[in-house]
Amino acid sequence: MMAFQQVEAFRGGENLIRVVGHRGARGVLPENSLIGFDFSLSIGVPLLEFDVVLTADDVPVITHNHRLHSASFRDGNGLFLTGEEPKVSSLTYEQIRQFDIGRLDGHSAYGQRFPDQAQIDDVRVPRLLDLLDLVDDPKYGDAHLMLELKSDPDLAHDALYRENFVRRVLGDVRGKGLSSRAVLHSFDWNLLAECQRQAPDMPSSYLTQLPDNADDVGEDSSKSVCPDFRGRRDEIPNLVKQAGGSLWCPYFADVTPENVTRAKELGLCVVVWTVNEHEDIGRMIDLGVDAIVSDYPGRVQRQLSESGFRWQ
Amino acid sequence: MMAFQQVEAFRGGENLIRVVGHRGARGVLPENSLIGFDFSLSIGVPLLEFDVVLTADDVPVITHNHRLHSASFRDGNGLFLTGEEPKVSSLTYEQIRQFDIGRLDGHSAYGQRFPDQAQIDDVRVPRLLDLLDLVDDPKYGDAHLMLELKSDPDLAHDALYRENFVRRVLGDVRGKGLSSRAVLHSFDWNLLAECQRQAPDMPSSYLTQLPDNADDVGEDSSKSVCPDFRGRRDEIPNLVKQAGGSLWCPYFADVTPENVTRAKELGLCVVVWTVNEHEDIGRMIDLGVDAIVSDYPGRVQRQLSESGFRWQ
Repeated sequence: MMAFQQVEAFRGGENLIRVVGHRGARGVLPENSLIGFDFSLSIGVPLLEFDVVLTADDVPVITHNHRLHSASFRDGNGLFLTGEEPKVSSLTYEQIRQFDIGRLDGHSAYGQRFPDQAQIDDVRVPRLLDLLDLVDDPKYGDAHLMLELKSDPDLAHDALYRENFVRRVLGDVRGKGLSSRAVLHSFDWNLLAECQRQAPDMPSSYLTQLPDNADDVGEDSSKSVCPDFRGRRDEIPNLVKQAGGSLWCPYFADVTPENVTRAKELGLCVVVWTVNEHEDIGRMIDLGVDAIVSDYPGRVQRQLSESGFRWQ
Repeated sequence: MMAFQQVEAFRGGENLIRVVGHRGARGVLPENSLIGFDFSLSIGVPLLEFDVVLTADDVPVITHNHRLHSASFRDGNGLFLTGEEPKVSSLTYEQIRQFDIGRLDGHSAYGQRFPDQAQIDDVRVPRLLDLLDLVDDPKYGDAHLMLELKSDPDLAHDALYRENFVRRVLGDVRGKGLSSRAVLHSFDWNLLAECQRQAPDMPSSYLTQLPDNADDVGEDSSKSVCPDFRGRRDEIPNLVKQAGGSLWCPYFADVTPENVTRAKELGLCVVVWTVNEHEDIGRMIDLGVDAIVSDYPGRVQRQLSESGFRWQ
């Protein structure tokens, strides 16, 4: 199996644990926004995790849910959406960019999870291309992308859909000459197989979450597309390796000294998500993971620093 | 008394309470740094509070304490300062900019107050001129500065020192043509009198803190230069007005319904500092202050938004 230089950007080492900005820096700024990505990059957190979904006109856009999230999407009158949320795949990019994603509805359960997030006006869903333009800036030459492909649960069974989705994403990434600075990341193992078929030069990153963990409030669940590893927690690294993975990205509550050790023996890079609380960050440092994905990258920097670790 | 347009930028109104970024956004980014000021401006918080001290070579620089703060100043080897902290007034600007202020010592009592502050390398103490350049950018045309003059307690008694300090600060502000976008802010009433003498076109902003409140851990105390208002809490607005003040900036624990009402009757703009906790922010909203100074401007935006207030 070939060694991928992109993976090394996420690999830890002696007194080194990487920090990955989750959806930019969701705790601080609107998630999956250019201003959030720029914040993360500008504080010296060059690793970005984010979510890509395909629009009706086949534009890869950066947003988490398959439907416009009413907790953060506002219409032209500045009002949060009500009623049934429209699907991203049913709207063109031009339609999607009419919505403002700069604020979070503090009265929603989702909004209450991020009480410090700045409230900005006139922030739009970025295209993948917009983020690629940002990291193409020479000052962000060390930026690397953990590009999550969110497979639409209604379409994920369709091989043609998967082929097209991966092709569109790769078209953007290759078009900007940034394939050597991106890893392809998903909960959907079928989609990752398609990535390996179309992009043998790019590493696959396998997201996993055990089904006994509760879903995050107000977010699409990954459970419909992630294999069910119930009772097989410590076997996951072997399965990821067999599937051709270079990175293993478990939910932080799923990692144990045993499975981290096993993953490292297999040469996998272990990147845990989404770690926001002081105590949990400390446990991940103690376990010696390679990288920590967080909504609060500054907080993780602080804690690493105090523990004698660097992140770059 | 003349009306100052600068004051109106800080004035609240119906469903309007302003947000002022404290030292940029100290809870999120290194305090009194350009990256912190830029963050505050970029999230739609155009009002900046910050501290100006004079170097040995008469350069107004932006830093809070009169001595290099060992909790955030690192030497050329990346180590936090130890031993006696040198005075800003004993060093040239060139000497001061050798230090890196991008990180906070998490092992210090001061550092522990800001556990989410990003840790950045190669951040320098800005000159006042550097911040003036930033807000001169047309995209920040609505930015206004709450420029705190920190009078050196060892020199504050000296009228010649005060004359020179104010002259240097005004030289920078006028040189950039930004006097119509700044208010002159201090705990030192003698210094504010000097400001009024030299800059009758600029409003004075009177900081106050009752001596029964504890000093903030790890910071210079203002008590040696602020008049002692013990037992006269509700008289302060009258005294500020008599002294020629346009803004009254009390420590948030010192405000009461009575003194806020009195201040407003006098036409003073009431700007409270430094309000970081949810409950305290709520109390300030209920009291109807004009503006809230916070280390977490995003948090204040969120809470205002949820309470049906705007900040611009």
